[in-house]
Amino acid sequence: MAFLLFDVNETLSDLGPLDAAFAAVGAPASAVPAWFASTLRDGFAATLVGSPVPFAEVASATLATLLPAHGVRASDLDAAVSSVMAAFTALPVHADVAPGLEALRRDGHRVAALTNGSTANAESLLDRADLLPLVEACLSVEDAGGWKPAGVAYEHAVRRLGVAAAGLTMVAAHPWDLVGARAAGLRTVHVDRAGTGWPDAFDRPDVVVTDLRELPAALA
Amino acid sequence: MAFLLFDVNETLSDLGPLDAAFAAVGAPASAVPAWFASTLRDGFAATLVGSPVPFAEVASATLATLLPAHGVRASDLDAAVSSVMAAFTALPVHADVAPGLEALRRDGHRVAALTNGSTANAESLLDRADLLPLVEACLSVEDAGGWKPAGVAYEHAVRRLGVAAAGLTMVAAHPWDLVGARAAGLRTVHVDRAGTGWPDAFDRPDVVVTDLRELPAALA
Repeated sequence: MAFLLFDVNETLSDLGPLDAAFAAVGAPASAVPAWFASTLRDGFAATLVGSPVPFAEVASATLATLLPAHGVRASDLDAAVSSVMAAFTALPVHADVAPGLEALRRDGHRVAALTNGSTANAESLLDRADLLPLVEACLSVEDAGGWKPAGVAYEHAVRRLGVAAAGLTMVAAHPWDLVGARAAGLRTVHVDRAGTGWPDAFDRPDVVVTDLRELPAALA
Repeated sequence: MAFLLFDVNETLSDLGPLDAAFAAVGAPASAVPAWFASTLRDGFAATLVGSPVPFAEVASATLATLLPAHGVRASDLDAAVSSVMAAFTALPVHADVAPGLEALRRDGHRVAALTNGSTANAESLLDRADLLPLVEACLSVEDAGGWKPAGVAYEHAVRRLGVAAAGLTMVAAHPWDLVGARAAGLRTVHVDRAGTGWPDAFDRPDVVVTDLRELPAALA
């Protein structure tokens, strides 16, 4: 039996609809990856200086500086930011999430979530997919004093879940998250749906899957 | 008299030629911002977990995971990464850098640099522009134990330059750098050449310029 701690943004949620949300405000879909990476960059920076900022606040601020370079006019900016952020809070889960979580629970594994976003957003994502009953707890770094991959984020989950760090397995699409989890003593599973691979700059994870339905066998 | 500490990547160097470097390996110029933001994201992550990695190593690893999604074949990947990294080490300075630094020195200001990259790369950039004699020291976070915006990076500069933190003014194109400098006690100048603006998630800098030639008047 494993106790799996899932990352939420992009690990459970499918960012695909953000392409259309950008297009709807006149920005190219090709700008979505820069927005998401810049949001994490600035969120990590705020954690590094000891003044973490809520995810939605960083994401909105980053959007507001990025969209004008793609032709969004100042008079339309507030509405454009609101529109993209609304799309962000209405994302679906990936197609493999429901069958993956159901298979894990059927095999007796425990499941929780730890997000750099808000608890409310994580719970809403799972609830829209009728998956909330499968997840014991949706935890947020907003209660931890720093974003992942800072150690305090994982320590918060360890404390709240009442288990040893070595008894938790972090499951994430992002290598930087697993580097933090590993440093905090957790086991690590990389979810590499697109076959992006692992950056050589980081130590490799314990397990790699391309689909959450592979998890029960990979953990056996 | 002010003692100005310049960031290097994008503050002094002009990333513009990276568009052509991406195109030369078959990747779109629109992927450059995501690459640069992802490099900083992963570099900050490594600093957050206490295992900082050299800039070129993170930048190369990020490229190697990003380029295949843009059609670069596995057999061409090593050469493509080398080609983009070669372009990165051969960037020019922005057009306002030489007249800006010369005007500052003429007014009696002191000038040093602090980069998340290597000292060698910063010195080479300035040397190619015949500006190295205007800069007292090119410092790198590689000698500090963590990337900017971690406090150790600015503390390294304070120690090496032998001045009080409050006697240094950080000059940077990146808000996240100035947030760190401010937290470490330095004054801050945002260089906003493109008029991108300041992200609301961060405290505002002391001074904003759009061109380094504005600095002598802005400091007066």
